[in-house]
Amino acid sequence: MPAGLAVEAVHCYSLLHDDLPAMDDDDLRRGQPTVHVAFDEATAILAGDALLTHAFALLADETCHPDPTVRIRLVAELAAGSGVGGMVGGQMRDIEGEKGGFSNGDIEVMQAMKTGALIRASVRMGAILGGADPRALSAMTAYAQAAGRAFQLADDILDVTATSEAMGKATGKDAGKGKQTLVAQMGLEAARRELDTIVNDAVMALRTFGPRADGLRATARYFASRNS
Amino acid sequence: MPAGLAVEAVHCYSLLHDDLPAMDDDDLRRGQPTVHVAFDEATAILAGDALLTHAFALLADETCHPDPTVRIRLVAELAAGSGVGGMVGGQMRDIEGEKGGFSNGDIEVMQAMKTGALIRASVRMGAILGGADPRALSAMTAYAQAAGRAFQLADDILDVTATSEAMGKATGKDAGKGKQTLVAQMGLEAARRELDTIVNDAVMALRTFGPRADGLRATARYFASRNS
Repeated sequence: MPAGLAVEAVHCYSLLHDDLPAMDDDDLRRGQPTVHVAFDEATAILAGDALLTHAFALLADETCHPDPTVRIRLVAELAAGSGVGGMVGGQMRDIEGEKGGFSNGDIEVMQAMKTGALIRASVRMGAILGGADPRALSAMTAYAQAAGRAFQLADDILDVTATSEAMGKATGKDAGKGKQTLVAQMGLEAARRELDTIVNDAVMALRTFGPRADGLRATARYFASRNS
Repeated sequence: MPAGLAVEAVHCYSLLHDDLPAMDDDDLRRGQPTVHVAFDEATAILAGDALLTHAFALLADETCHPDPTVRIRLVAELAAGSGVGGMVGGQMRDIEGEKGGFSNGDIEVMQAMKTGALIRASVRMGAILGGADPRALSAMTAYAQAAGRAFQLADDILDVTATSEAMGKATGKDAGKGKQTLVAQMGLEAARRELDTIVNDAVMALRTFGPRADGLRATARYFASRNS
């Protein structure tokens, strides 16, 4: 639970900062006013900073896991997934990409960093907590990378197809801002076929685990089939 | 060195975010344009986020210390000093305090959190890396708390007495914003006497360490005597 809370704290902090006027400038999140709208920008910046810091406090506490070797591995995973080589670096590339042209390859690298890295970290953290050996950790990592790609591609598809009401946030923003997504580049139908392929990759990566990985299989399918 | 870099990364991130228009709105830092002026606000927010995250990556890496028990203690110290119970919480109280009245006690708590907690964490991290026993760690903590108070009080005095050129940042801002500081409340001369007392407290806390603590004694004196 503390490790799950730590991932959730990082995810929430990223939403608070991404919604700021200087970033995506969103007024609505999960159907509620964003933090800088409900309070003010300084509060949103500091609440994000506090959540990010608290994530590492949660992992460092012995209630997370009795073995400090496990806890420090979790810290390393979360920092790698959310830092400049992961989520934050992906966000910066996304902003830079809006200014200039992005090839398909650039978009995939950006999305792997911005969205995929934290999904990858959270899956690997679960595997580490579960005592995965190197081979199992490698399989879980392959699953996580495919699941992360599925999540992001589904998000880009929903931005085109879903209503703001269903999503609890503004939609149609990518096209409105001329944002380069895979859906914009390959078209909606090709993107849906690609999504099916990626979900299949994710499920295949779990083939050695048997029924105990059913939850992860369902998660990957949910990423692709969700309506919001 | 990695632990020192981690503290420096947290300190730099706090400056990047504090200088933002929604916070202190400063254009000048260390005699250079602030990050949001030289680049833009999104870059300053993300660079701060990346630095904060990287601090924990540095501590988690085995190059920091071979013993994971030591490394996880460093993570816990840095998170406690910089999070909602420390630096970020103090910054939020500072902003709230500017809106309403602050008593001397409120200011001391706010300053102990905003500035003192990170100084305390950095001293304790050094003590932990040096293998301090509980008694030595307690003495180092007492030193750090006094040194932190000295640093902040000297800062408030310099805001009244120093030039912007010497400080490399805007001065006279506290009074201009009607900001409640101990100098504003007790007057300049009483503040200077208080500063001498606090530095003496810091030095006294180190009395059991002999000459090997001379660097820390000089640091506390430097905090009080610096001109910038």
